[in-house]
Amino acid sequence: MDRGEYSNHLEETIKLVNERLAKFRAKYNDDNAPYQQSCPDAMWYSLSAGGKRIRPVLLMEFCRIFGGSAEKALDSACAIEMIHTFSLIHDDLPCMDDDDYRRGKPSCHKQFGEAQALLAGDALECLAFEIIAADENVSFEQRVKLIQELSREVGVCGMIGGQIIDTCCTDEYSDERLLKMYALKTSALIEAACVMGCICAEAYDKIPFAREYACALGLAFQITDDILDITLTSEVLGKPIGSDADLGKQTYAAVHGVEAAAKKAEELTQAALDIAESFPDNEFIVYLTNDLLGRKF
Amino acid sequence: MDRGEYSNHLEETIKLVNERLAKFRAKYNDDNAPYQQSCPDAMWYSLSAGGKRIRPVLLMEFCRIFGGSAEKALDSACAIEMIHTFSLIHDDLPCMDDDDYRRGKPSCHKQFGEAQALLAGDALECLAFEIIAADENVSFEQRVKLIQELSREVGVCGMIGGQIIDTCCTDEYSDERLLKMYALKTSALIEAACVMGCICAEAYDKIPFAREYACALGLAFQITDDILDITLTSEVLGKPIGSDADLGKQTYAAVHGVEAAAKKAEELTQAALDIAESFPDNEFIVYLTNDLLGRKF
Repeated sequence: MDRGEYSNHLEETIKLVNERLAKFRAKYNDDNAPYQQSCPDAMWYSLSAGGKRIRPVLLMEFCRIFGGSAEKALDSACAIEMIHTFSLIHDDLPCMDDDDYRRGKPSCHKQFGEAQALLAGDALECLAFEIIAADENVSFEQRVKLIQELSREVGVCGMIGGQIIDTCCTDEYSDERLLKMYALKTSALIEAACVMGCICAEAYDKIPFAREYACALGLAFQITDDILDITLTSEVLGKPIGSDADLGKQTYAAVHGVEAAAKKAEELTQAALDIAESFPDNEFIVYLTNDLLGRKF
Repeated sequence: MDRGEYSNHLEETIKLVNERLAKFRAKYNDDNAPYQQSCPDAMWYSLSAGGKRIRPVLLMEFCRIFGGSAEKALDSACAIEMIHTFSLIHDDLPCMDDDDYRRGKPSCHKQFGEAQALLAGDALECLAFEIIAADENVSFEQRVKLIQELSREVGVCGMIGGQIIDTCCTDEYSDERLLKMYALKTSALIEAACVMGCICAEAYDKIPFAREYACALGLAFQITDDILDITLTSEVLGKPIGSDADLGKQTYAAVHGVEAAAKKAEELTQAALDIAESFPDNEFIVYLTNDLLGRKF
């Protein structure tokens, strides 16, 4: 597989996911009386705001390399993107990060109001589980295992747990606390994606390796985010690199400096690549892993 | 069954549910690092704030009358109470109803702050599905059907849909719109409770009757709520009965008057009782149905 083939496969996978998401939207428009239309509009606004679709792509790819068809993974891929989108909508709310913009567009609550944004997030969280429960391409047992995996990685011991740590003010910084927060806030849902791919393919013996890969990748991904946060700020606002540390913003890059953070992200990416080595038909995953580290936005 | 036996059975059922909820809390405390403790505290605060447990009781009772054991229904009963609690926490938030008190105690966000309340609601929504997916007392097929039913009645076509209608300002009032809002906001989760009880007992042929009963009961329940809202306000604040209508608060009782609303609630309760007539071993449900109409708080 050369880079062109990698890009094509990536684009095609994203297209499949986007088409399936559009199908769910159409179904929801049909099912709903006009009274409730505002909320599906808000859900769709955020769902289609141009994310990188990393989680659904990983889910689809893990299913594929372990022998499952795309059809078996597609609904789960949509479900995990809905969970990711729900978390972004709630994260942007005034009582959380209070962000007016997301991916260059007004955030959901700026566009639709706080109440509708809150409800759109709530509805997406629920819809993710509804979609998996109704997915007739996989067995009852697979659906239960998919929901177990997803709900665990979303809840207090997963993504939401990471947001709890992030929002609980504390004076004392520790690497342990920060890395725990990253593991939950970012890695947990990436882990769910990779593991759910294995479940869709009924490749249950591969789950431990998928977890290990995802944990390394998730951490590398978050630390890369930290670095971009500093360096992009530097370019755009003219702030000196690393100034976020002075503002008390506790990110790995802010605390340890960009250089040390870049080294850490590289080590973690290498760890992820080492595990990916053992996967069959792994060229796409290797490209993707390297790309996520090297990304510029 | 006399009233004393009814009260005993009600108390015992609520005790079973509360004990199981406490077990889940203990499990969560064990599983979590101290970093995330604030959110489980907020979840538990609202879960244990002294609700009437109507939905779990209905779920347990529908399972029982159709031949299922309490053990098969208990986790689902906890799950539906978690969903109900999540909806109350988010409903009380400043961007929604902005209520400082709930059941005589500070509401979740007044006690723990908005961010933790938002996350506690998110976590409870997710935990409900996690608990059902992990419930080994019922088959994979039952778990999938339980999650399908619950997620559908929670989402845009259910409870959340009702909240969307409630929060979308509109100038024009119609009975149709109001009753649709009630059917979604209140009846949907009561419907889920009754249907999930049937699923726990594998009494799939009873589901249509459970739905019909629940829709009538849910509507009667909401209209009774409206009436109490007016009459209790009248007693406590000395406002004249029906004055909410002047404030533009569009409830059935405010629009049609307390007398007409009471008559409507009675008709609906009778409709629910007529369906309950066909259920086996139905004395408890008959008592409960009458009690919900006649309640004073």
